[in-house]
Amino acid sequence: MINSQSRKNTFSKKWDKYSDKDILPLWIADMDLQSPKFLQDIFAKRIKHNTYGYTLTPAKLNHEVIKYYKKKQQWSIKNEWIIWLPNLVTAIYAVNKMASDSSQSLVIPKPIYPPFTESAKHYKAVFSFVSMVEEHGRLTYNFSKISKLLKKDAWLMLANPCNPGGSVLNLDEMEKIISMVFKEKAFLLSDEIHSDLILDQNIPFFSLGKDKRIIDRTITLHSCAKTFNIPGLSCGFAIIPSKKLRTRFLNTIHGIVPDPSLFGIIATLECLKKGDSWRNELLKYLRDNRDRVVNVLSKISNISFIAPEATFLIWIKILHPVPKKGWRSYFEEFGIGVSDGRDFGDPQSIRLNFGTSSSNLNKALKRFSLAMENING
Amino acid sequence: MINSQSRKNTFSKKWDKYSDKDILPLWIADMDLQSPKFLQDIFAKRIKHNTYGYTLTPAKLNHEVIKYYKKKQQWSIKNEWIIWLPNLVTAIYAVNKMASDSSQSLVIPKPIYPPFTESAKHYKAVFSFVSMVEEHGRLTYNFSKISKLLKKDAWLMLANPCNPGGSVLNLDEMEKIISMVFKEKAFLLSDEIHSDLILDQNIPFFSLGKDKRIIDRTITLHSCAKTFNIPGLSCGFAIIPSKKLRTRFLNTIHGIVPDPSLFGIIATLECLKKGDSWRNELLKYLRDNRDRVVNVLSKISNISFIAPEATFLIWIKILHPVPKKGWRSYFEEFGIGVSDGRDFGDPQSIRLNFGTSSSNLNKALKRFSLAMENING
Repeated sequence: MINSQSRKNTFSKKWDKYSDKDILPLWIADMDLQSPKFLQDIFAKRIKHNTYGYTLTPAKLNHEVIKYYKKKQQWSIKNEWIIWLPNLVTAIYAVNKMASDSSQSLVIPKPIYPPFTESAKHYKAVFSFVSMVEEHGRLTYNFSKISKLLKKDAWLMLANPCNPGGSVLNLDEMEKIISMVFKEKAFLLSDEIHSDLILDQNIPFFSLGKDKRIIDRTITLHSCAKTFNIPGLSCGFAIIPSKKLRTRFLNTIHGIVPDPSLFGIIATLECLKKGDSWRNELLKYLRDNRDRVVNVLSKISNISFIAPEATFLIWIKILHPVPKKGWRSYFEEFGIGVSDGRDFGDPQSIRLNFGTSSSNLNKALKRFSLAMENING
Repeated sequence: MINSQSRKNTFSKKWDKYSDKDILPLWIADMDLQSPKFLQDIFAKRIKHNTYGYTLTPAKLNHEVIKYYKKKQQWSIKNEWIIWLPNLVTAIYAVNKMASDSSQSLVIPKPIYPPFTESAKHYKAVFSFVSMVEEHGRLTYNFSKISKLLKKDAWLMLANPCNPGGSVLNLDEMEKIISMVFKEKAFLLSDEIHSDLILDQNIPFFSLGKDKRIIDRTITLHSCAKTFNIPGLSCGFAIIPSKKLRTRFLNTIHGIVPDPSLFGIIATLECLKKGDSWRNELLKYLRDNRDRVVNVLSKISNISFIAPEATFLIWIKILHPVPKKGWRSYFEEFGIGVSDGRDFGDPQSIRLNFGTSSSNLNKALKRFSLAMENING
């Protein structure tokens, strides 16, 4: 069963931002839903032991990752390809550092989740933006433009499913990307953290890095953090089949990137072993939420939006001149705290997180409608 | 009450290294003792909530750190000086990266905890070793040599209490270091993670960075990880009073060093609030262990050792030619897994972790004695 949960008094980044205000937080990408009961159970068992010393990622955790890819994608991952991480942002920064240190340029589609561009700027990497395009209600890539920019040894940086757009690469799009990376001898970072949150049951998912042509040129990132709502527990992983690339990556993270935390390790193991049936219930819950959001938004004029195929996030373009303070401040005045599209490369848009209870979502949608009525006059 | 605890089947780095062998692990620095009961209680309460989303370090956590320094050292820390970290190794790496990027040299005493030198090598920083000297059964610094090597803007890298030596800087030694750093306009990293584990009750402790002369040239590192046996929970902090230095440090860790984990934050808050009485019991327990170790070792010939003033670690020099495979392998053959002094800058020595149960310790000491009898013939 999926249970919603108040996040108050839990040091929640999402909720404490507005703790003294009547603003419903719909920004940072975690959910106002309880994690599966089996996590509570395994944690209760673990804390009976009451020691929390240096913890390794056990062999059986790798074994579960290998099983996961085998079952979901018929992809045979090798044990040594798996690198454990405290989260995926550290890995995105590490790839940008590697790229910058080796004068490799980067091609970054936009809109995209802020760490992609922030990390490129932070390490003074040379990068180009390529705006995504809307086609048949989905965000997709401008393949010809990417192809022109993607040089030998350059990095194409993707999130699939994309964040904020929520679209999942289809087989045709995958082939375009794979053949492009292969042809140009480029590299690919594929952040697949939302790949277990595909709302439409008929959409298949395959990791780009699975393709033999580019397997040695790809870093795949994944984690249970989004699906099982455990980003506070610090655990994720990279899959890097190429030994050379893996060595570079390991060298970059050495010492400065810590191991996953004890509870993150325990949780990830348990989610991989037992998570499927809870996840199916979650998908149903999130589908209902998405459909409700889409239903409300389609009645509002002067916005355009992408109904997400995956994630609990929706990307909405506001077809009005952007207020000076940006859309975030505008919507805060109406009691909802959204992510400002500026941080994703498009000041015209906002990202709204619908991973919350039905009652919060209804309240939030009413406030959003009111805010839009106010602009629409 | 201090309870010992088997660490088996908990993904313990320390124990799983030898899980299939009859070797007692006395290496990595965590304890085979339960954490305080109040941690179990707060965790039990927290998991009832069963959400584990993005978590911030709450204002009251900073407040407790400020109270801690005020009470223990009459040092008034400012809120903005505190930087939260997943652990202290990441910070040691960050300082070495900063030093290397700015062509600042480093002076590192030895023996020292491996990350100090590993990080300098990793970032190709220019560094000099200065061997510590034994004086009246304590390890102390070669001040005149350090003074010669410490140039303007160079970093002096210390652990106080020192690890592996376990000595605590006395007021005279502190004055020498402070005036040297001040005179040379150098910088100081002071890792004080063992400063709440001073076994001798009459030894006072003050942070070097508290001194006004060098307050703007010092990074102080601390954590509850060692004292309360929670290194698996990923939480620690740096205190950096200088805004300029803080900005450099924050810039270095940005993105690639993650936040502390949720359970690390909860645990640290609770330990700072409630930890004192449990800590006093722990000190008694560890004092007993230390005294037992010292008692056994003093009867063994051809070793020399430092009775530690702090920590649950003891540094032992073996006065025999080092076997080809090193001392670690030698002692493993006799059923104890120690830290090899090679990794600390002295292949002649070993570090032995006595943070374990009385029965384990007795067994380990018997095995150590037997191993020594075998060399001594």
